Amino acid sequence: MIVVMSSRATGDQIERVVERLQAMGVDTNVSRGVSRTVIGAIGDVTCVDKDVIRALPGVEEVLRIQKPYKIVSRDSHPENTVIDIKGIPLGGEQIQVIAGPCSVETPEQMRAAARGVKAAGCRLMRGGAFKPRTSPYTFQGRGVEGLKMFREAADAEGLPIVTELMDVRMLDTFLEYEVDVIQIGTRNMQNFDLLKEVGRSTQTPVILKRGMAATISEWLMAAEYIAAGGNHNIIFCERGVRSFERAYRNMLDVTAIPVLKKETHLPVIVDPSHAGGKAELVPALSYAAIAAGADGLLVEMHPTPCEAWCDADQAIDSRQLQDLMAHVGGIARVLGRSV
Amino acid sequence: MIVVMSSRATGDQIERVVERLQAMGVDTNVSRGVSRTVIGAIGDVTCVDKDVIRALPGVEEVLRIQKPYKIVSRDSHPENTVIDIKGIPLGGEQIQVIAGPCSVETPEQMRAAARGVKAAGCRLMRGGAFKPRTSPYTFQGRGVEGLKMFREAADAEGLPIVTELMDVRMLDTFLEYEVDVIQIGTRNMQNFDLLKEVGRSTQTPVILKRGMAATISEWLMAAEYIAAGGNHNIIFCERGVRSFERAYRNMLDVTAIPVLKKETHLPVIVDPSHAGGKAELVPALSYAAIAAGADGLLVEMHPTPCEAWCDADQAIDSRQLQDLMAHVGGIARVLGRSV
Amino acid sequence: MIVVMSSRATGDQIERVVERLQAMGVDTNVSRGVSRTVIGAIGDVTCVDKDVIRALPGVEEVLRIQKPYKIVSRDSHPENTVIDIKGIPLGGEQIQVIAGPCSVETPEQMRAAARGVKAAGCRLMRGGAFKPRTSPYTFQGRGVEGLKMFREAADAEGLPIVTELMDVRMLDTFLEYEVDVIQIGTRNMQNFDLLKEVGRSTQTPVILKRGMAATISEWLMAAEYIAAGGNHNIIFCERGVRSFERAYRNMLDVTAIPVLKKETHLPVIVDPSHAGGKAELVPALSYAAIAAGADGLLVEMHPTPCEAWCDADQAIDSRQLQDLMAHVGGIARVLGRSV
Amino acid sequence: MIVVMSSRATGDQIERVVERLQAMGVDTNVSRGVSRTVIGAIGDVTCVDKDVIRALPGVEEVLRIQKPYKIVSRDSHPENTVIDIKGIPLGGEQIQVIAGPCSVETPEQMRAAARGVKAAGCRLMRGGAFKPRTSPYTFQGRGVEGLKMFREAADAEGLPIVTELMDVRMLDTFLEYEVDVIQIGTRNMQNFDLLKEVGRSTQTPVILKRGMAATISEWLMAAEYIAAGGNHNIIFCERGVRSFERAYRNMLDVTAIPVLKKETHLPVIVDPSHAGGKAELVPALSYAAIAAGADGLLVEMHPTPCEAWCDADQAIDSRQLQDLMAHVGGIARVLGRSV
Repeated sequence: MIVVMSSRATGDQIERVVERLQAMGVDTNVSRGVSRTVIGAIGDVTCVDKDVIRALPGVEEVLRIQKPYKIVSRDSHPENTVIDIKGIPLGGEQIQVIAGPCSVETPEQMRAAARGVKAAGCRLMRGGAFKPRTSPYTFQGRGVEGLKMFREAADAEGLPIVTELMDVRMLDTFLEYEVDVIQIGTRNMQNFDLLKEVGRSTQTPVILKRGMAATISEWLMAAEYIAAGGNHNIIFCERGVRSFERAYRNMLDVTAIPVLKKETHLPVIVDPSHAGGKAELVPALSYAAIAAGADGLLVEMHPTPCEAWCDADQAIDSRQLQDLMAHVGGIARVLGRSV
Repeated sequence: MIVVMSSRATGDQIERVVERLQAMGVDTNVSRGVSRTVIGAIGDVTCVDKDVIRALPGVEEVLRIQKPYKIVSRDSHPENTVIDIKGIPLGGEQIQVIAGPCSVETPEQMRAAARGVKAAGCRLMRGGAFKPRTSPYTFQGRGVEGLKMFREAADAEGLPIVTELMDVRMLDTFLEYEVDVIQIGTRNMQNFDLLKEVGRSTQTPVILKRGMAATISEWLMAAEYIAAGGNHNIIFCERGVRSFERAYRNMLDVTAIPVLKKETHLPVIVDPSHAGGKAELVPALSYAAIAAGADGLLVEMHPTPCEAWCDADQAIDSRQLQDLMAHVGGIARVLGRSV
Repeated sequence: MIVVMSSRATGDQIERVVERLQAMGVDTNVSRGVSRTVIGAIGDVTCVDKDVIRALPGVEEVLRIQKPYKIVSRDSHPENTVIDIKGIPLGGEQIQVIAGPCSVETPEQMRAAARGVKAAGCRLMRGGAFKPRTSPYTFQGRGVEGLKMFREAADAEGLPIVTELMDVRMLDTFLEYEVDVIQIGTRNMQNFDLLKEVGRSTQTPVILKRGMAATISEWLMAAEYIAAGGNHNIIFCERGVRSFERAYRNMLDVTAIPVLKKETHLPVIVDPSHAGGKAELVPALSYAAIAAGADGLLVEMHPTPCEAWCDADQAIDSRQLQDLMAHVGGIARVLGRSV
Repeated sequence: MIVVMSSRATGDQIERVVERLQAMGVDTNVSRGVSRTVIGAIGDVTCVDKDVIRALPGVEEVLRIQKPYKIVSRDSHPENTVIDIKGIPLGGEQIQVIAGPCSVETPEQMRAAARGVKAAGCRLMRGGAFKPRTSPYTFQGRGVEGLKMFREAADAEGLPIVTELMDVRMLDTFLEYEVDVIQIGTRNMQNFDLLKEVGRSTQTPVILKRGMAATISEWLMAAEYIAAGGNHNIIFCERGVRSFERAYRNMLDVTAIPVLKKETHLPVIVDPSHAGGKAELVPALSYAAIAAGADGLLVEMHPTPCEAWCDADQAIDSRQLQDLMAHVGGIARVLGRSV
């Protein structure tokens, strides 16, 4: 951390900054230049609050050099982390496409969906039993009953399951149903108590979706909350961010993929369905994500999309999923990977 | 709800949309124009999912005419709602400035803060015992112990307290300490299980802060989650939204104030401290908020700002709070209100 | 400018940065700390390109301490600049409300508008003869003929005129018609050749509207283009920026007002009409702007708003303008100013 | 266009809307439903201003069904348009990578750059003689002299040239130097007089970069300004938009590619260099762009990037360009295209 003092800062003010930093347990190095003094803070400054220092009299700017995240940082673990999901590797050479319906509706729908996922060559299945809906008056998910339907349908095809946890009080139920990957949704990216709980109570892999308008740095820090609790099996999922554009739902931040791959050793996947919000955009966004270096996709697929109970206009069907897998495979090979 | 069919839509497709709408319990009115057919859905369409209709074959556009929110809508309650907080009215002619420190630190700090709040003529006090921090390695709040310190300091001055609830499992403790106003923070605006719980388990007034990049419509729907549970004592708090601008922390959306006052009968307040993120911006933003029609402010005040444990650079001190109250009073009077 | 070298930077790399900076005419001060070296660049670094330095091997971060703008900076001129517009002061104690129609339509409309502006107590009149329209197929303004109608109507009431210049080739015509204030629209904020021309060819005051998504820093730099040419009579006009919110047209950045008043000595005004995009929002936004410290307003007023040829839903009428002036006056007095 | 009247609209108000629409030359179809009246406007409504209709008393919502753009719309021309640039096709099966330095510096630099572009297998060269710089105090480009250097260096390798036109008064010089593709920069996307001039005075292909925060619809309308003048040789170039994210310069809107390919028959290319703002991000963004369906790329390449006079940290070198071409070719083949 570099603290740049104002050109009018007094010796007392400089002294006070040094004392405050030392009280926080870091060493300092004061460099008095011709026009201004620069104080370097040396050591572990992750616990030093930049705002607290900036508020001290005489301080002009505070520049953080070290990253505020530790466990999730690639500095702490230069190799890619490959997460093992019931034997399926995520984050390695092989790309994983996680497919399935937005929401669990009926046992029949889930069985048909599971067959479609399997037939397309996907190895993991997604589906929502608890749904975060903008309106309290629309379908809120099938709940625990839905979890059961999902478990049965996926087991029949030997597919590990990915589903969203919204309420911290439901975690035990998730563990009871042996949910294979817990998804934390975009609206809960900074629900810190939920993050802490999935960090300390389980080793189940967690997909952490990016908040609606979260910076990459905040997202890495949210993951750090999970990691700090002891669970390092974290998968980042880019799903588009809020923007001024109205031609589609969210703006897929494809640049976040190479940035994250540089900053963290953890896997990065992309949800092209929630990003664009339209089935017709899913192929282009999926190809772009893989081309940019993503380790996988989280795709909404429904046996009969126009009968879906929610987000009906963004699901693709089984046949489209197969076509998508073929092209994703082609692009993966160009980049030295496989599906 | 108006469903505009594509100019190439077939009679079968039109029929199917009509059937789907009727299955959802609404009446329809089909108008066949020269170039295209328009279907009107009549009745209560709050439970009709716009996306589900848009996904049907032949549909070009779906336009929602009725608002998707009900209880919080001014249509359902034309008069302003005045919320009673231990005898202090919020939402009426009198403007309320809720002041206090970002976080509860020590009993001494809280006593000094309470005296400052009272001396400035404020009638309600704020303070955080549980703090949502971007980093897991920085100060996370004093917790239950902090709640106790806050209660005691505020009681000594006869001030009702406002404090943030982050974890649904902590609600009973909040009720035990008789927290007078529960604050739901920006990161939890769409933590739907938390909203449902403060809606059905208590009648304690709730301040619902706007999400980092939430639209006004999503914000009203989040409030509707609380209201649908039975608690109608909801206060909206604008606190700035995410933007591209880097000269300050968040962009205060002053336009949201008149828009909300038109859409809802519930009180609207503004947090100028988290908006600008700098103490020097607090007066100008406070005056702007009141001038635009806000019913109150939520201001960070600390007895000795540069010693604050968090957000040190955005707190004003007691003397500045007094000056702020004087100007807020002047502007209020121009608009026919008082402080 | 502070250049922070990477902890792995070699002596050669440090040497090269120093040489490059010195070649650009600035002095350097090298401070070798325990973990990293920091190079301070001393002197006038406005012409040093931050990106060029950041691209050099071994550089980790470049921090600009000095502002990149000079003439428009308050550092160069601590007192407020009061611009004289045919005897009307802008930027001083007295607040100016510039009112008039979006576009010049007919001589009758302009005469009625001028009478309304005068009757409300405003001292300056606005009106567009050349209109920047999103579509090439909608009304593009009355052109030179409109300029003439405007000049005549305003002269009859003794009002100086404000009108938008879009095409650099039209500047001579503007000077011929003695336009009193040249407005540069939001879409041309970074039309650098236009800025250079109004900077070097005239001393006519220029209202520089903020670009649709321009940062405050870019805006100040755009003004610096005008100032560098010799014309220092520049007025900043905040008019709302692009955002994700859909309940109104643009998001008025009220925080930009106190930020600009701190950074520059030049006047700052606000256009509440283009910001909200709706007549009903104009009063609240106007009051907020004045309360936040703006030196004036640029308001769309039309004798019969619902007959306006463009932006019909954002114009207020004469009666509403009078009411607005009364409240603006009240707020101004609370802040020690007048209208 | 569908005009939805308020449920409280009177017969007179409905009549007035009908009259106003008919006065604008469109037919109307009034459908009186149970709860509200809907008016359909039939015929060419491109010249009908939505805002003017919305401002009429009794109108609740105005929904535009037809697109406001005509010549550039795929509706008007279902096949892809392939633009011929001195024999090089853009918009067809073959992908074009346009490479070259940010700015023209010296004859030697341009010759080395041209050789590098040619050696990598690119068929078109870019370079800036006139530079839009944020600061008036940094390098503004070599001007006409630079244009000459560029022309000579490119001619020696047989490469058509792409360069930016900022000032409408410079168009004749561009035509004199036979610039092969005129680039309109992001800051001039809505400089309507410049657009009109390149529309009516020349048939030279125009690359129209997207404005900093322009919606796709505004961008299409800007192109329509050029097309309406008679020049239909327009190429859209996505270059990233303004966002809240600070980890890179602009957010590449990869979703804009499939959306544009659906809306328009004209070619779409991507500038990965200005999007990310860092050389290390160029490959990932280039692959993503091609995978999403772009017809080409506009890449900054410099013989010795760290000596570049501007944007030094975003240029790749000749060797990196060759590697990029190889991967782009691989991805193109997966999608049935070539480089």
